[in-house]
Amino acid sequence: MNKKIILKTIGRIMIVEAILLVLPIIVSVLYHETWAEASSFVYVSLGSLLLGLGLNHIEANTDRLYATEGYIIAALGWIVISFIGALPFVINGSIPNVIDAFFETASGFTTTGASIINDLSLLNRSTLFWRSFTHLIGGMGFLVFVLAIIPNSESNSVHVMKAEMPGPTFGKLVSKLSNTARILYLIYLLMTLVLIVLLMGAGAPGFDAVLLAFGAAGTGGFGVLNGSIAPYNSLAIEMILGIAMIVFGVNFNLYFLIVSRKWRESLKDEELKWYLGIIAFATLCIAFNLYSHQYSSSRVLRDSFFTVSSLITTTGYSTADFGQWPLFSQLILLGIMFVGGMAGSTAGGLKVSRIAVLVKSALAEVKRSNHPHRVMAVMFNKHAVSHPDLRAVLNYLVIYAGIFIISLIFISIEAPDFMTAFSSVAATFNNIGPGLAEVGPTANYSNYGNFNTLILGLTMLIGRLEIIPMIILLSPSTWHSRI
Amino acid sequence: MNKKIILKTIGRIMIVEAILLVLPIIVSVLYHETWAEASSFVYVSLGSLLLGLGLNHIEANTDRLYATEGYIIAALGWIVISFIGALPFVINGSIPNVIDAFFETASGFTTTGASIINDLSLLNRSTLFWRSFTHLIGGMGFLVFVLAIIPNSESNSVHVMKAEMPGPTFGKLVSKLSNTARILYLIYLLMTLVLIVLLMGAGAPGFDAVLLAFGAAGTGGFGVLNGSIAPYNSLAIEMILGIAMIVFGVNFNLYFLIVSRKWRESLKDEELKWYLGIIAFATLCIAFNLYSHQYSSSRVLRDSFFTVSSLITTTGYSTADFGQWPLFSQLILLGIMFVGGMAGSTAGGLKVSRIAVLVKSALAEVKRSNHPHRVMAVMFNKHAVSHPDLRAVLNYLVIYAGIFIISLIFISIEAPDFMTAFSSVAATFNNIGPGLAEVGPTANYSNYGNFNTLILGLTMLIGRLEIIPMIILLSPSTWHSRI
Repeated sequence: MNKKIILKTIGRIMIVEAILLVLPIIVSVLYHETWAEASSFVYVSLGSLLLGLGLNHIEANTDRLYATEGYIIAALGWIVISFIGALPFVINGSIPNVIDAFFETASGFTTTGASIINDLSLLNRSTLFWRSFTHLIGGMGFLVFVLAIIPNSESNSVHVMKAEMPGPTFGKLVSKLSNTARILYLIYLLMTLVLIVLLMGAGAPGFDAVLLAFGAAGTGGFGVLNGSIAPYNSLAIEMILGIAMIVFGVNFNLYFLIVSRKWRESLKDEELKWYLGIIAFATLCIAFNLYSHQYSSSRVLRDSFFTVSSLITTTGYSTADFGQWPLFSQLILLGIMFVGGMAGSTAGGLKVSRIAVLVKSALAEVKRSNHPHRVMAVMFNKHAVSHPDLRAVLNYLVIYAGIFIISLIFISIEAPDFMTAFSSVAATFNNIGPGLAEVGPTANYSNYGNFNTLILGLTMLIGRLEIIPMIILLSPSTWHSRI
Repeated sequence: MNKKIILKTIGRIMIVEAILLVLPIIVSVLYHETWAEASSFVYVSLGSLLLGLGLNHIEANTDRLYATEGYIIAALGWIVISFIGALPFVINGSIPNVIDAFFETASGFTTTGASIINDLSLLNRSTLFWRSFTHLIGGMGFLVFVLAIIPNSESNSVHVMKAEMPGPTFGKLVSKLSNTARILYLIYLLMTLVLIVLLMGAGAPGFDAVLLAFGAAGTGGFGVLNGSIAPYNSLAIEMILGIAMIVFGVNFNLYFLIVSRKWRESLKDEELKWYLGIIAFATLCIAFNLYSHQYSSSRVLRDSFFTVSSLITTTGYSTADFGQWPLFSQLILLGIMFVGGMAGSTAGGLKVSRIAVLVKSALAEVKRSNHPHRVMAVMFNKHAVSHPDLRAVLNYLVIYAGIFIISLIFISIEAPDFMTAFSSVAATFNNIGPGLAEVGPTANYSNYGNFNTLILGLTMLIGRLEIIPMIILLSPSTWHSRI
């Protein structure tokens, strides 16, 4: 393993984070905050810059990155940005406990949106901005961003991008990676801008519109007010966000196709049909269940649509306390929390395409038992899924279930009850944010002790990177082998 | 599809059930019960005999059974025996509601041991005997038994046996099926006999010893007294049952090897090592957790061992109210409920060999990501698992998870809370019996309405037959195709 190139790349990541930390400083100046309020960002930015420059100075024998280095850079990089990003919270005293601050920042970068802050009104503007800005950066991928802005990184970027990119890819990767990454990032930022304008048009204050747009674009879920979206009490804002979350849960390659004027191709995408179908089905199931439980009929569809949109895209904004909904509705919500958004979107979860392929693979297996001599291929988007791709999806489910169970058992040592423990892990591992019961939409994660906070913080990172980079980072055999 | 041969075989199954129903009549006579008490068994036995003889009279053009017919006979056969076996309960008034009686009998045959009876002391001896006797019959497989006693069924039995046999087989099936089936059944009955003698030696009343042995042998869990094994308050009985359950959770092919004097081969079995390893690990985890929660230190190991043995083998006997244990212990228990016993045993669950192969497959996938060009085979018992076998195990997990989620969502319409709903499905689908929370070891399933009782009854049957036969039975395409 090439440790030098890993350290060098981590150095570059730190330099980029140092530059991004200038934005909350600008916000601090714009809102006439005191030096005491702005200084934490200045210190951390400078420290990150100096350390980053030092690491970037390392002479690597070669520039080539193999798969192992790609995974380790992704895993280590995300831990490093979360720790550095947590320091301003600790220094300015908004989150004095370093583990809590790490949790909050990992929650931001991974676009989870789970919080340990009890009262958001105590935070100043620059801190609120940085907290939500991590969603925007983490949404499309921090490392992709780094590689997109560093020139001549073409040959190195494939493995890092693969390690960071959410969801499986069936078939070929788009060539000219860093070029594509730039275009995708541009689309992403433009769509966020449009969303900000729409939210302001719907009456949201400017600062809130920006932060809510960051939260929706990254499918993160950090808000500005205690109580998430409910306090705005505005149908327009809810509808705009409800649709926006779904839009950001779509595979960005489809927007790339639209920009390339391949409208039809993008609309024919099979994953898109599954995604919209599941949203419609879950919304109707929940609406019907709420209606039959004497829920206010004027809000039945409004709340069920918003909540489904928020949870399937793993955003975590809330307009209603779904922790009080009937068990049937809660289980449908738990189900879509595992489904997640489309591959190549900013959303978390297992990803719709994996679910679709798993369902088709299971059906093929049943048919195979019935007709042992017939050959069954699993088709997706009109192509047969290759044997290694299918095996990878099936094994991913096993790995996913394994990590889920291990996290759940760890959490259960301190957790008060099964629903709290189960939904804590589901909500962090799938990068959603709020869970159910004692970590439901009206509560937060502040009641957990340091042990559980740390475990759940790591669970978010493991979930965001789709597990394998973290296992490779933590496995002793990675560090023993000389290759 | 050959519908005539299916009906003919179902007829034979009914004849055998009619013969087995003579045993509770004998018990009734032995205990000097009134005609009113014995008559229900007489009526049902005669009815089943006559109907069975009628169906057996059908002339089939051919004797050959293909895979589809095998699955349908298994699925339909199990539904039929459960319905017929339920009738005595309805007729003699011990369980007046037919859906409840179906639940209780399916619970017996599938060796689940989940009950809707609130007070066992109200049942007479013959009824208690029949209730537990279904465990003994269902444990090794009803259809295998039918095929084992019907002469010249060799050519037909492969597909039916495959459909009924629990767990995957890696490698070749033993030849001369019905011959092997007879030997395995003999070993099974002899071991049950030994267990009865041991229990009587430990001081259990004769009737109780027989029924408890049936429950342990079939890994079922129906008992004689309210409160399962706790009321005997005997260390000897608990230890004998604790070990016996583990013994009956072992693959019977290993006993066949021992009988064939291949000791070493059977002790080297990889699944056995995983099985015993998981039992030891889970027992220690729970003992440690209980100890740290001020649980009576003299009972820590005794209760944790018995409970682990009971739940991993999917028996469901209890000596302690593990519903009151800390969440960590409860989650370990939930975990082993999914693991289940060894393939080819009387136990339910996913089966240890599947878990072992899934774990190895997942690890191979992680290594594959790290070294994309290295070839990785999944080894089990020193042989590489073939690609179709591995694919079948992986897909089984997907199918299993799918059915689990669908059952859970159905149950949630009426269930009071998440732990009750989740553990109800886990305990019936894996054929265990008691769950946690409101279906925990001190409670039962009588609080559920007809809808949930029926769903959970079907869930037991689906779990016992490892899903696929039931899907094939219920899928419309099976009945449309002419092949």
